[in-house]
Amino acid sequence: MAAKADGNTIRTERTRARILAESLTLFNERGEANVTTGMIAEALGMSPGNLYYHFRNKDEIVERLFARFEERVDVQPAAPAGGAAPRDAPWGPGAIEDLWLYLHLMLEGMRDYRFLYRNLDDLTARNSRLHLHFNRIVDRKLAAVEALCEDLVRVRAMRATPAEIRTLARNVLVVATYWLNFQALRAPRAKRAVGDEVDLGEAAYQVMALIAPYLAGAARRHHDRLSRHYID
Amino acid sequence: MAAKADGNTIRTERTRARILAESLTLFNERGEANVTTGMIAEALGMSPGNLYYHFRNKDEIVERLFARFEERVDVQPAAPAGGAAPRDAPWGPGAIEDLWLYLHLMLEGMRDYRFLYRNLDDLTARNSRLHLHFNRIVDRKLAAVEALCEDLVRVRAMRATPAEIRTLARNVLVVATYWLNFQALRAPRAKRAVGDEVDLGEAAYQVMALIAPYLAGAARRHHDRLSRHYID
Repeated sequence: MAAKADGNTIRTERTRARILAESLTLFNERGEANVTTGMIAEALGMSPGNLYYHFRNKDEIVERLFARFEERVDVQPAAPAGGAAPRDAPWGPGAIEDLWLYLHLMLEGMRDYRFLYRNLDDLTARNSRLHLHFNRIVDRKLAAVEALCEDLVRVRAMRATPAEIRTLARNVLVVATYWLNFQALRAPRAKRAVGDEVDLGEAAYQVMALIAPYLAGAARRHHDRLSRHYID
Repeated sequence: MAAKADGNTIRTERTRARILAESLTLFNERGEANVTTGMIAEALGMSPGNLYYHFRNKDEIVERLFARFEERVDVQPAAPAGGAAPRDAPWGPGAIEDLWLYLHLMLEGMRDYRFLYRNLDDLTARNSRLHLHFNRIVDRKLAAVEALCEDLVRVRAMRATPAEIRTLARNVLVVATYWLNFQALRAPRAKRAVGDEVDLGEAAYQVMALIAPYLAGAARRHHDRLSRHYID
């Protein structure tokens, strides 16, 4: 009897996972506003009733997907000198590569859940929980960028005042949050849905360029070397 | 007879102007997608038939408003040393104030036509003419920012490579284009429609902060003085 219940649980979980995966694909392709639960059920060869058994409505699907997105991007950048190293340790160029990698990971998460960014105003206006959670992500990212910059200043790889760091962190967030939208706006119309033509390298390069003028010495030179192939 | 035709022309123009003004207000307040031509006619105490006599559909109103927006923001920043001054003239702090003023004018235009920014993805996806024209504005602004930076480099008020200037101009456009959206996202929910809580000073400060680290000498010091009251 317990074994049977487990089998049901597994089947239920598998069905929920299939619904979420298909919803994410459809939302990204067509925009969340243009996708109904009926369309999701149909794409899965499932009855609407069966879908409603798993998710009461589309907002519940959106919130579940958002929770996954939140988990995925809730990663902190590596500290410049590594977690255990003393704060005043000399700061190697490896940290710039860590930062670049971190940016790529963040931007990949945004690309995979790009439907959120395509209609961010409407989604967060409609759903107060999404609004709250999205702002919590922005809060954490602002704090992470500021902490990273403070660490860089401490090891003399960056020259910036506390006020400059606060302002810089806000600009980093704006460029990172809306770069996909800007790329879609600038793309030829045929492929212009947000995220369809994502150039993550270009996005990371633009964000790094915000930080670059504050970098000093070896850190700055290493940044310039790494970014050169985006310029050519 | 000619006088009567003129009177009609004036009345027609006045009615068109009233329709455009009311549409702009409603679009900004409620979002363009949530406003119908019926609602515009009703707000004006006008029959839908009368409105259709002046504009065939909502898209025609949107396009006319967009044309006005385009005229309004199609202003070039003042050249650092003034139009007639030699290119290598010493560059006074006045130019930083000109730049700040120019940013305010641009951002005011965006605030007054904020419905365009609230739903930019959808609007430009739906209307290829808007997409084309919006990109033409972005092209011109990119060129204006680049030209301004090149002038600043020429008079030694800025230190930046041509590649840095291209990247900087793109970031200026992204922050300027999406700052209203970011402010709306960050605002408490009660007042969160894009542009409702516009702090143009903050927007201008964030854009200037992108340029600031490349400024040199007196220009940099003057920027820091001007921006101090946004920090406090």
